[in-house]
Amino acid sequence: MAGGIHCGIKASQRTAGPRKKDLALIYSRNVCSAAAVFTNNRVKAASVLVSRENIKDGILQAVIANSGNANACTGARGMKAALRMAELAALEMSISPSSVAVASTGVIGVPLPIDKIENSVSALKASLKGDERGHSDALEAIMTTDTRKKDIAVEIEIDGKAVRIGAMVKGSGMIHPDMATMLCFITTDASIDSVLLDRALRRAVKNSFNRLTVDGDTSTNDMVLIMANGGADSARIVSVESGGEGRNSYDIFYDALEYVCVELARRTARDGEGAAKLVTVTVSGAESEDSAVSLAKSVASSNLVKAACFGADANWGRVLCAMGYAGTAFNSEKVNVSFKSGAGEIEVCSDGQAAAFDEAKAKEILLQEEIEILVKLQDGTGSASVWGCDLTYDYVKINGDYRS
Amino acid sequence: MAGGIHCGIKASQRTAGPRKKDLALIYSRNVCSAAAVFTNNRVKAASVLVSRENIKDGILQAVIANSGNANACTGARGMKAALRMAELAALEMSISPSSVAVASTGVIGVPLPIDKIENSVSALKASLKGDERGHSDALEAIMTTDTRKKDIAVEIEIDGKAVRIGAMVKGSGMIHPDMATMLCFITTDASIDSVLLDRALRRAVKNSFNRLTVDGDTSTNDMVLIMANGGADSARIVSVESGGEGRNSYDIFYDALEYVCVELARRTARDGEGAAKLVTVTVSGAESEDSAVSLAKSVASSNLVKAACFGADANWGRVLCAMGYAGTAFNSEKVNVSFKSGAGEIEVCSDGQAAAFDEAKAKEILLQEEIEILVKLQDGTGSASVWGCDLTYDYVKINGDYRS
Repeated sequence: MAGGIHCGIKASQRTAGPRKKDLALIYSRNVCSAAAVFTNNRVKAASVLVSRENIKDGILQAVIANSGNANACTGARGMKAALRMAELAALEMSISPSSVAVASTGVIGVPLPIDKIENSVSALKASLKGDERGHSDALEAIMTTDTRKKDIAVEIEIDGKAVRIGAMVKGSGMIHPDMATMLCFITTDASIDSVLLDRALRRAVKNSFNRLTVDGDTSTNDMVLIMANGGADSARIVSVESGGEGRNSYDIFYDALEYVCVELARRTARDGEGAAKLVTVTVSGAESEDSAVSLAKSVASSNLVKAACFGADANWGRVLCAMGYAGTAFNSEKVNVSFKSGAGEIEVCSDGQAAAFDEAKAKEILLQEEIEILVKLQDGTGSASVWGCDLTYDYVKINGDYRS
Repeated sequence: MAGGIHCGIKASQRTAGPRKKDLALIYSRNVCSAAAVFTNNRVKAASVLVSRENIKDGILQAVIANSGNANACTGARGMKAALRMAELAALEMSISPSSVAVASTGVIGVPLPIDKIENSVSALKASLKGDERGHSDALEAIMTTDTRKKDIAVEIEIDGKAVRIGAMVKGSGMIHPDMATMLCFITTDASIDSVLLDRALRRAVKNSFNRLTVDGDTSTNDMVLIMANGGADSARIVSVESGGEGRNSYDIFYDALEYVCVELARRTARDGEGAAKLVTVTVSGAESEDSAVSLAKSVASSNLVKAACFGADANWGRVLCAMGYAGTAFNSEKVNVSFKSGAGEIEVCSDGQAAAFDEAKAKEILLQEEIEILVKLQDGTGSASVWGCDLTYDYVKINGDYRS
């Protein structure tokens, strides 16, 4: 079940219309196996510290999350507020505070107005719904500069039973690989051991959210969290090994989870702050997969490449330049680069040098909303995709005056 | 002596007025001790490879440089063109090709029109002048998106003789620490052993250009090069040790060289592509100097911090966030942050938490053209400054369509 309300943390309403939701609750009647990946920023929000502690036993039953305030760089007072958030949700739902995860997102360094949450927690409980509406309210309540709702649900079959995985994500700026990247809450009615759930989540995040970059800034608050409540009555997944013939349950579950994470990572890049375009960088033929990821990230993170994508400028030299400072070896004389989109595909660099290409066609390809930069190397069989976005006037506008 | 002309590499003149210079020559009648630092991008322009080879013996007599074309990612043909550039200058000046350094800057991946240089090399020689005018012509001829001429000259006294150091730099985009960062040519009439010159240059670059960031992109072409021709008739500097009382000649020379490099690094940040502001980040009280550099670079490189500087938004949380992902340990509960400019100084963060501060005053401070972000830690005695700039609409504009 999920719900979301306005409790008053998101302050000023500049425009008329309904007040923006800023407090969300996700709750399961059953105790859940749970796992999470947290930001690796050394400055961690109080919510991250509390959630990391509460998930240690692999068990959760609820997540309480607010937007409009990151509760980071807020000292002992912030820590107290985060613990109180867990306690308030626990009291309201009659569960243990240690089975509640806490998440916050918003401005850093402003004390969290915990009294507003205290005053609204019964209303928050009352907003819980088991249907699409409750899910949607919760998602709205964790959004900040996001311009779209980013959620997904899939259904798979495990041992003849229908199992569902649903997920919501918020994230638009302060997004860069090698961290948990944003708030993402995933729920499933699968039954799975928490150690296996942790293993599946870490691998899925590595292949999805950690291959995502919007602006190179790693946030203080981010987490990807999954709760599995076993409500589907499917056989419990307790091993990665197959119990019999065909694909085993763990693999079926993992594939669906990775699909969910990759899809949300792509949508997060597409909804990057100010982004006009989704830019997917795929490197193949690299020495290893790690090497492909490193090269692709360097290209997708380059402000110059991002600005060229915005301007639909087929400036492939910047792609090679960004690969050159990735810190990964590659044979720069055996690099082919193509641009691809719904409007076609065009090779712009062959064996590390300019290919003869039609500039007008390249421009047409780069004017599309979803662009692929395909880099082919001849160093091995490693390949990987990284998702990013273009750098636009709106990114500067949004971030030039975020607080006021 | 120096000179600069238009040879036709910078093609289209969109506006009326004199044709843009694109070919420069710096020449000394005497053979010079020489040293250089080159980009550490794995993709290196042909000019970098040729110059690196020619400077191995510590001797140079001339530099030929063009703008409008980087001669990078141009394969064997590009290598041939770079060698030919050295040869053309050498033939014209009747010196050995191995005593000529070559530099190029401009678009990557387009074959260098070496015939245009071939046709213009006598005119280039004819443009050589020993005065300010020749220097100015050469500087114009290496500029690309630069909006200002960045040069400096200082005079020091070594053993009772006046010794001069002059320098010119081009660089505006594709600028990030840990590389040579741009084209910078330094000349001096000091007499100094090339091993010592190399030592002085490396240290000065580490403390200046390698503490500079505009957009996080490390170029394929950059070099900082110094030539010392001994024309001042001062005693040759052959040791870092003092020969007698007072400060020794090496130290006097080094201090002047570092001053020249730091000053040009600052001006390059100020003239960063689209930059409206020079942002100096100073970290003090860090565990070590390296740690201070790493933290300051992370802050100065953050797109979110840069956009906040553009918007004059006192968003200090982004400063702590950027420090948190710098990969360097620090006590985040003992961080003080102040903003400073000609309009005053204001503390915005104390002990890792919000300080009570006057938002209007902070805005006034951040609206100035030169801003300092002062970070005070309590982890040790390491301190360092890094120079950067804000992220503006114009950066996106300039780089959205650089080639056309």
